[in-house]
Amino acid sequence: MQVLVYGAGQLAQMMYLEGCPMGIEVHAVDVKNEQVVHPVSKQVIEISLAHAIANADALTVEFEHVPEHLLEQASRSGKLFPSIDAVLIGADRVREKRLLTRLGVKNCAHQVVTHIDQLDECVEALGERLIVKASRDGYDGYGQWRLTEKSELPALKSALQGLDLQTVPLVVEQMLEFDREVSIIGVRDKQGVVRVYPLAENLHHKGQLHVSVAPAFNITEALQQQAEAIFTTLAEGMEYIGVLAVELFQCGEQLLVNEIAPRVHNSGHWTLSGSDVSQFNNHLRAVTGLPLGRCNSHRISAMINIIACSAFSSDLLSIPGCHLYWYGKTVREKRKMGHINVTAENYAELGDKLLALSEYLPIEYFPKLVSEAKRLKSLSAA
Amino acid sequence: MQVLVYGAGQLAQMMYLEGCPMGIEVHAVDVKNEQVVHPVSKQVIEISLAHAIANADALTVEFEHVPEHLLEQASRSGKLFPSIDAVLIGADRVREKRLLTRLGVKNCAHQVVTHIDQLDECVEALGERLIVKASRDGYDGYGQWRLTEKSELPALKSALQGLDLQTVPLVVEQMLEFDREVSIIGVRDKQGVVRVYPLAENLHHKGQLHVSVAPAFNITEALQQQAEAIFTTLAEGMEYIGVLAVELFQCGEQLLVNEIAPRVHNSGHWTLSGSDVSQFNNHLRAVTGLPLGRCNSHRISAMINIIACSAFSSDLLSIPGCHLYWYGKTVREKRKMGHINVTAENYAELGDKLLALSEYLPIEYFPKLVSEAKRLKSLSAA
Repeated sequence: MQVLVYGAGQLAQMMYLEGCPMGIEVHAVDVKNEQVVHPVSKQVIEISLAHAIANADALTVEFEHVPEHLLEQASRSGKLFPSIDAVLIGADRVREKRLLTRLGVKNCAHQVVTHIDQLDECVEALGERLIVKASRDGYDGYGQWRLTEKSELPALKSALQGLDLQTVPLVVEQMLEFDREVSIIGVRDKQGVVRVYPLAENLHHKGQLHVSVAPAFNITEALQQQAEAIFTTLAEGMEYIGVLAVELFQCGEQLLVNEIAPRVHNSGHWTLSGSDVSQFNNHLRAVTGLPLGRCNSHRISAMINIIACSAFSSDLLSIPGCHLYWYGKTVREKRKMGHINVTAENYAELGDKLLALSEYLPIEYFPKLVSEAKRLKSLSAA
Repeated sequence: MQVLVYGAGQLAQMMYLEGCPMGIEVHAVDVKNEQVVHPVSKQVIEISLAHAIANADALTVEFEHVPEHLLEQASRSGKLFPSIDAVLIGADRVREKRLLTRLGVKNCAHQVVTHIDQLDECVEALGERLIVKASRDGYDGYGQWRLTEKSELPALKSALQGLDLQTVPLVVEQMLEFDREVSIIGVRDKQGVVRVYPLAENLHHKGQLHVSVAPAFNITEALQQQAEAIFTTLAEGMEYIGVLAVELFQCGEQLLVNEIAPRVHNSGHWTLSGSDVSQFNNHLRAVTGLPLGRCNSHRISAMINIIACSAFSSDLLSIPGCHLYWYGKTVREKRKMGHINVTAENYAELGDKLLALSEYLPIEYFPKLVSEAKRLKSLSAA
């Protein structure tokens, strides 16, 4: 079988590696030049995109920001999973919020802004602590802004001056006091079977995921079920096929959706060593019509992103249960270069192993590692 | 890092897949035409063998029958692991027996025959139940013969007439009454560190491995230690670097060496799903100088070879803990097409899963599967 993945980064690469043993050949599309490439070597495969689409048993994406004309071409083949609608929901915060509202899935209080003067209404309705996000990424001048008190409103307005909010609206969210960030990753197949991995806890730094721990500590059965219900509502609501990731804020015993990613997700990389069947493997099974595998966790896992650095000692492989996943890219600022999975029998042991790991790494690139190691040790002592 | 593997079959392919996440790029050499190829696609890489050797950080083999001039070229680079001597021991039963004798490692009583008349002495010394093997494989007219009583000796002699026993001698072994066949697979690194996986039990049919179960049932601590001592003696005696497989006969509480394979081994494929670190991964670590990984078994595993058949239902993937490893080859008689790993918490569960698996397979190609499934169930009931 053949699967064509839009996007030729590490997610396509990991799909390739997981597909090969199942007899699934994964090719990737570099969406910048529309060339078909080998997902590992990135060598151009001399075949037209149209031809590759015709050859493929299934088409899928490794990221949501695939140019819309390519998604439409893919969709016309009838072999794109998840659907173009699901991918576009992931790429557009307005569509995403509309979906959450339609399905009655709890998320942050928010408003959509298409004219700068609506910001006053936002402050009235949502309060003065706000996060302002472009509805779509990758547009010049757009980004994220924060309002912490009303007096900053004029400055914010002037920063936003000149943006074409009719074309790319803003989503304004109430800044939330949450306890922690978690994510639920699961998979839905063509028969509608849904399977869900245990919740992972995610630690971010400057907007990037640095560490995930799965299963997250102290997840009650009720909380896991709440997450699974949210997942199922969203997956069924979108008639979703493949792996879907849902980022959540935990506020007490309440989970609020932060973001939906219509693809395999960084916070699910732990499944490569901590689950019987990885998210990449299950995604390929879902889109090709193979039976889904187990979404279990047979150990406690931590996933540590290697960001913007390549100089570290490979002796870290001497730590039992420590696995390196290197993406083979050249270093660039903020670039994800690889990740390290560490598995352990319990949280205390995981903490010990992360502390041991920190000895092999240039610690300035891993700002969350040591504190998380210590936290895991203290949690399990409690 | 780059590793060049002599041989471009499934073992090189699995090394490629395990090497990639560690940042190790594996290339393969098709020893028939001396071309460098991609280990998965088998596409020719436009680079000379000499160039590929120069580029590689380490050279290794996926099978022992690499033409000697290639091994010598590889050896001259100083980067061939295991050494040419170790590889040649695996390719030549006379050298192998000589090593076992020199190191005092127990094996079947045997004699080397370089003239047909020596067969009479063999019967006198070893008895009339004998197995006659060519010392090296792949020579016309050679194979294996059995003598079950003295009266068959003239017929055997006439079958062997015309062979050049000076060039390719015979090894004549006493036919052994053994309880079962097991194998010990381990790895030795450049610092001399040795790690060993648990013993696997191997079921053969018509000279081919069909099923391995690891850890083998009912292995006492003493027996595992005996196997580890044999492994260590051999690995140290050869100054071996990489993964080494030792096939053993168990006779009561005694282990006798049957055969040595200087490479990753079919009876170690279970490590891909039943161990933290697979034999392929550990082999690459050893030959590139990375720290060795754990050689544990975190579940009970069975490995089932798919031989000479490709028509089966992929719905077998619905069995929890069932993993397919497909090699992407065209069907040929006796050809290993892939294997299936099944993991379980205990032998009874493993037996149940193998029975379930048998429902998805054309059972005539899997003559050992159902009986082994039933045996595992009965063993654990005992």
